[in-house]
Amino acid sequence: MITFSEQSMQLQEALEAFMAAHVFPNEHVYHEQVAAMDNRFGLVPIMESLREKAKAEGLWNLFIPPKLSEWSDHGGLSNFDYAPLAEIMGRVIWSPEVFNCNAPNTGNMEVFMKYGTPEQQERWLKPMLAGDMAAAYAMTEPQVASSDATNVELSIVRDGDEWVLNGRKWFITSAMYERTGVFIVMGKSDPNNASRHLQQSQVLVPDGTPGLIKVRPLTTLGYDDAPQGHAEIRFEDVRVPAENVLLGEGRGFEIAQGRLGPGRMHHCMRLIGAGQRTLEMACQRVTERETFGKPLAQHQSVREDIADCFSDIEMARLLVLKTCAKMDQVGAQEAKDMIAAAKISVPRMMQQVIDKCMQMFGAGGLTEDFPMAEFFNYARWCRQADGPDQVHQMALGRQLIKRYTE
Amino acid sequence: MITFSEQSMQLQEALEAFMAAHVFPNEHVYHEQVAAMDNRFGLVPIMESLREKAKAEGLWNLFIPPKLSEWSDHGGLSNFDYAPLAEIMGRVIWSPEVFNCNAPNTGNMEVFMKYGTPEQQERWLKPMLAGDMAAAYAMTEPQVASSDATNVELSIVRDGDEWVLNGRKWFITSAMYERTGVFIVMGKSDPNNASRHLQQSQVLVPDGTPGLIKVRPLTTLGYDDAPQGHAEIRFEDVRVPAENVLLGEGRGFEIAQGRLGPGRMHHCMRLIGAGQRTLEMACQRVTERETFGKPLAQHQSVREDIADCFSDIEMARLLVLKTCAKMDQVGAQEAKDMIAAAKISVPRMMQQVIDKCMQMFGAGGLTEDFPMAEFFNYARWCRQADGPDQVHQMALGRQLIKRYTE
Amino acid sequence: MITFSEQSMQLQEALEAFMAAHVFPNEHVYHEQVAAMDNRFGLVPIMESLREKAKAEGLWNLFIPPKLSEWSDHGGLSNFDYAPLAEIMGRVIWSPEVFNCNAPNTGNMEVFMKYGTPEQQERWLKPMLAGDMAAAYAMTEPQVASSDATNVELSIVRDGDEWVLNGRKWFITSAMYERTGVFIVMGKSDPNNASRHLQQSQVLVPDGTPGLIKVRPLTTLGYDDAPQGHAEIRFEDVRVPAENVLLGEGRGFEIAQGRLGPGRMHHCMRLIGAGQRTLEMACQRVTERETFGKPLAQHQSVREDIADCFSDIEMARLLVLKTCAKMDQVGAQEAKDMIAAAKISVPRMMQQVIDKCMQMFGAGGLTEDFPMAEFFNYARWCRQADGPDQVHQMALGRQLIKRYTE
Amino acid sequence: MITFSEQSMQLQEALEAFMAAHVFPNEHVYHEQVAAMDNRFGLVPIMESLREKAKAEGLWNLFIPPKLSEWSDHGGLSNFDYAPLAEIMGRVIWSPEVFNCNAPNTGNMEVFMKYGTPEQQERWLKPMLAGDMAAAYAMTEPQVASSDATNVELSIVRDGDEWVLNGRKWFITSAMYERTGVFIVMGKSDPNNASRHLQQSQVLVPDGTPGLIKVRPLTTLGYDDAPQGHAEIRFEDVRVPAENVLLGEGRGFEIAQGRLGPGRMHHCMRLIGAGQRTLEMACQRVTERETFGKPLAQHQSVREDIADCFSDIEMARLLVLKTCAKMDQVGAQEAKDMIAAAKISVPRMMQQVIDKCMQMFGAGGLTEDFPMAEFFNYARWCRQADGPDQVHQMALGRQLIKRYTE
Repeated sequence: MITFSEQSMQLQEALEAFMAAHVFPNEHVYHEQVAAMDNRFGLVPIMESLREKAKAEGLWNLFIPPKLSEWSDHGGLSNFDYAPLAEIMGRVIWSPEVFNCNAPNTGNMEVFMKYGTPEQQERWLKPMLAGDMAAAYAMTEPQVASSDATNVELSIVRDGDEWVLNGRKWFITSAMYERTGVFIVMGKSDPNNASRHLQQSQVLVPDGTPGLIKVRPLTTLGYDDAPQGHAEIRFEDVRVPAENVLLGEGRGFEIAQGRLGPGRMHHCMRLIGAGQRTLEMACQRVTERETFGKPLAQHQSVREDIADCFSDIEMARLLVLKTCAKMDQVGAQEAKDMIAAAKISVPRMMQQVIDKCMQMFGAGGLTEDFPMAEFFNYARWCRQADGPDQVHQMALGRQLIKRYTE
Repeated sequence: MITFSEQSMQLQEALEAFMAAHVFPNEHVYHEQVAAMDNRFGLVPIMESLREKAKAEGLWNLFIPPKLSEWSDHGGLSNFDYAPLAEIMGRVIWSPEVFNCNAPNTGNMEVFMKYGTPEQQERWLKPMLAGDMAAAYAMTEPQVASSDATNVELSIVRDGDEWVLNGRKWFITSAMYERTGVFIVMGKSDPNNASRHLQQSQVLVPDGTPGLIKVRPLTTLGYDDAPQGHAEIRFEDVRVPAENVLLGEGRGFEIAQGRLGPGRMHHCMRLIGAGQRTLEMACQRVTERETFGKPLAQHQSVREDIADCFSDIEMARLLVLKTCAKMDQVGAQEAKDMIAAAKISVPRMMQQVIDKCMQMFGAGGLTEDFPMAEFFNYARWCRQADGPDQVHQMALGRQLIKRYTE
Repeated sequence: MITFSEQSMQLQEALEAFMAAHVFPNEHVYHEQVAAMDNRFGLVPIMESLREKAKAEGLWNLFIPPKLSEWSDHGGLSNFDYAPLAEIMGRVIWSPEVFNCNAPNTGNMEVFMKYGTPEQQERWLKPMLAGDMAAAYAMTEPQVASSDATNVELSIVRDGDEWVLNGRKWFITSAMYERTGVFIVMGKSDPNNASRHLQQSQVLVPDGTPGLIKVRPLTTLGYDDAPQGHAEIRFEDVRVPAENVLLGEGRGFEIAQGRLGPGRMHHCMRLIGAGQRTLEMACQRVTERETFGKPLAQHQSVREDIADCFSDIEMARLLVLKTCAKMDQVGAQEAKDMIAAAKISVPRMMQQVIDKCMQMFGAGGLTEDFPMAEFFNYARWCRQADGPDQVHQMALGRQLIKRYTE
Repeated sequence: MITFSEQSMQLQEALEAFMAAHVFPNEHVYHEQVAAMDNRFGLVPIMESLREKAKAEGLWNLFIPPKLSEWSDHGGLSNFDYAPLAEIMGRVIWSPEVFNCNAPNTGNMEVFMKYGTPEQQERWLKPMLAGDMAAAYAMTEPQVASSDATNVELSIVRDGDEWVLNGRKWFITSAMYERTGVFIVMGKSDPNNASRHLQQSQVLVPDGTPGLIKVRPLTTLGYDDAPQGHAEIRFEDVRVPAENVLLGEGRGFEIAQGRLGPGRMHHCMRLIGAGQRTLEMACQRVTERETFGKPLAQHQSVREDIADCFSDIEMARLLVLKTCAKMDQVGAQEAKDMIAAAKISVPRMMQQVIDKCMQMFGAGGLTEDFPMAEFFNYARWCRQADGPDQVHQMALGRQLIKRYTE
């Protein structure tokens, strides 16, 4: 039923080999290096060397789809063909960056490919594709429910040849990361426009622009996810040239809508990789531990949980694959029902899968000795990212009611 | 991602047209006729006439797979291609029989095709294929946990040219049905055999054989599922000729194993049809009802439940389709991991889906005015049929632990 | 922490003895007699004789609270003291009627005690207290969401000295029962009143009044719950004298509000009795069955489920007891937060408890051979009775948000 | 139904006043001070000053029960009377230490009170009661499933007048804390004893003893819980005098058993306080946020979740209170069914409650800006502490099966 292209299958094989040779052996090394850095948001030595290797082997920018293939060496991979690759990367939480396939950079590069001027592409996109720069995407605000993008309040005011930005943002991944060179900032440029969807613009703010203040890193469930992190930032009379607007004034909402489909599926696929790896480790673990006279593997409830986890992972994977196939065929807009279904279901299911498996590891399952605690945080965090589950359930529910009553 | 054969797609269309023209309009008629019959286990007039129509239109014996295609007019449908057809039939609980595709007949016909002698096929299989006869499959016993087939206790003793059967069975679907002509009976013919899997035989007992006593119909959650029903029966010195053994003495366990894969998926697909129809009806319903000043459709929690049901149904469907594809490719034995995953997950999920949707129908949702109460019973009942969930979880869990530790 | 009055404890002991001596031994007899009756809604012989016994032993009308003690011989039992008695009765689904403590009669008797005129009490209440008559309460309507009582549409029009009723009702427990002598009917007498809560009246309609048509019995999950049943009825120009209005014109909503608190807790307590008995039977069962070489009782997952069921039952019981204590102290209106919490949680939890335990009984658990299938139906049905869970969640949620933001 | 003693009610009032005046205003101050410390495991200034205040106000050592009242000024508080106090403390994650009521110190002090010699009490207990010292309890080992205490492998060998300890421990709360003066270490002193329950001893190891190596702090879900922390430690030929054995050689298991009941309930009560506070904050939050044109508080699903959380918290609280009352009446051993039920249910329910409420806070709910992320970690962590849920479910299930089949 599921047949990937020859290219995808070769890449899967190459990626698995790369993970086995270079990533898994360095899984703890990465964390140790981050822990040892003076600046937790600097470059991590092992990451730098692995990125070189991956780039050299052509395991690079794999997320680029066929219709944007001019920007890739590999000719473009459909969402469907990319899905198993993202799953493989998801097996180690920090590995997507090795392949220049990490959020939010993938989405940001897509924005530049689709909406950037040649000048913007030259200045920002090309270094990102080459792996020399990262970008941050500044959407969420602390004081409003930003899942409703029209709520965004950061003000963007035209003053002569410049835009002046004022406001607060948070959960800005990579904001404090040393590699980050530019911020794509969503705000309100025309708050009185009769159409709520034409009030917003997106503006490019280079790192280091005066008035762009990095307030603090944030944690989710105790993780600061350094060096990428999730930061709170503030814009105080930040000025950028008029040409730094993306796509055009009043088109911020349009860009936001166009950016989201594939990124959400990337998260889902990585989470499935995380869940799958957790399950495999749990199977290993339960054969090694004994309680009350027999291995955990022989306890009926352990077997039941493992069976359920397998089924849940399989279903989640199939849902994402079908969603990807639909996106490939009819585009993200037409596939929004499936995207919502996957966005709602997969993080929640993976949170449960990982929660169940963690129990089999005793207290150790919650620590940094195993990857699943951080996976758990990733799953939990994804249930808020790009809007809480409830927002997507609402939209999907409304769409379905309409569909089945017409 | 999912592409059915041209033949399957034509049959889907024809089947949907048939359902719309003949089955849905008679949905309540059927129940009224059953309720009005003196013998609840007799033939239902509307069923008889619909069966004629379906047969005439070639919507008949669609379950027959390619490798048994000699027994069909349609050349055989793979499990994958049959799945959407079974789903369509599942939208009305009594409709599979219209197409001669109802359990346990499909499984019983398969048994005869695969394991019957030419004489047995002539006598039993051909009338079944023609729709003139039904068969019952007598496996489960009240006094032992029959999900472990080796527990079966009914005794089968050779006495000269005859087998003599003594024991009790229950949950024997179709046992009291007027159409039923033969019982396939699993029992122990060699209880002292060193191998627990060679102790059983399966023997054919024609309806009406002296000593075959139909004790009573049983209900599940209040449903007697007449006229098919689930009966308790007793064998008191029931004698049948030696040639009535199926496949050979001591091969009962082998037959039982060979019978189960497709049948389990048929149940799953029908349940998905039941869930899907329930969801569609719920979407309709919530636009028609108001509480506290607005339609149910505008309540956020209703939308959330509908979104979740959609996702769950979609995931369940994909799991079954992948399982079918695997069965088609490598056979049921090699696909037993997926079969178990679907068998565990689908009925449980459909029970939850239907339970949630029933809430949207108020008290009415529990009554015979809507199909979902009976669907709910079907889903709940399937969690016990062919062994409780737990048995399959155990087997799958064990298999997975082995797989991931090798 | 939990101390019942001396009287309650003596009654608990007497009730348990009565159950052991007279009810449990006749558990199946009752069902057999119902099945054998020509009229499924007639009087059941064993019920009649048990009621005589219970009345003779003073196990009668135990639901009557202290402030209505003039109507009882026992001086009135607080909700708290009555709770364990209702739990004991809940262990056999048909036993509350033995003690004249079954719904909806208890609620109906309360209505007469609190709102009836002396004449109404003489004519209807006294025979009910004596066990010679039953009443039905006609609230729910098929075409509107009746959980919002202001939605009720049955029309009550004054015509001279009479009320004229026209409309449909369903889920009218006891409507077809031979013992039932009167219907308390909620309808709209003043649909244009500016206050939505003053539009309704409740009117008494004696059984047999012309135009009162019993359309059909209804099932829930396949159960008709005969002889009490849940019927659909129709009122076609039903005429009753002006004095048959209860409490006064326009006070129907007020009566409806005043009727519900204790009745909801009675359902909860009975369900807890049902859950507790199911758990105890499951513990027994798992020691008697073997699968795969050991008793079910030694399977880890069985133990886990039993542990969880015990905890859930215990928590549900405590929630109800605290609710009862609060109702006793401050009245049902002030205790509506706790009543809602129990109404939401207890049926749902008991449904889950029973669902889990049913798995331990194999297919038999779904049949009439064990009481839990009918308990399951009772729990499921209670999640719709007096309004679906969601209605109570909404009201409680709103109240809590208010409480914690003031 | 629930009546606390006069003393408990006065303490509740005083404690709430203290929290309002001194703890809530400093909630973030504490975290800021920890973040700013050079040694994350040192003394936190605000904690030191608050402890002085609490001690001065008599809000000190409130956990001491009546039968150990000689060690308290307040005459001893029953578990039942202490429960609401622990709940109040649970509203701020670091506040129990303010009142010298934090784990594992409370349990350790109990051990000294019950099993210590006068010399041991003089040297260790008195400073702990005075708040001048903390102790660590070293039970869990990384390489075995320590929930089965007989699995413990750390070796304790007698060598002349000394015990020699070798082995590893982890999840040793307070091990790295500056205040900690002594370790109570469980190990095997007689591994060949025929009784598995007589092989263990518990030995006192003063902080600073040569060979006692603090390997590293551990995190759970990203939290290091500094300054208390959960550390891994190693014992390399650690030597202590013979008199440092607690209670006597071979009695380690007995001490372990005697230590656990109250501590488990303390965790549960604190978690209920955490859940309750989270719910109250969520109610506040949903009135302040708007999505799609109306406050979150008006979304039906938000109300449903809030209603369910309230019910769950109430049930959890009642379960703990009943457990406490039973412990007070019959002792922890006889109350082990209820202790297990609470230990299983409460952390799991509070994890769910907090998980639901976090959704209402958007991404912020996962950060350090609100207390619920850390509460979530606490709840999750408690499901592993003192043995995973599954171990307690197994024991309780076995006990119940026995109870209901005798």
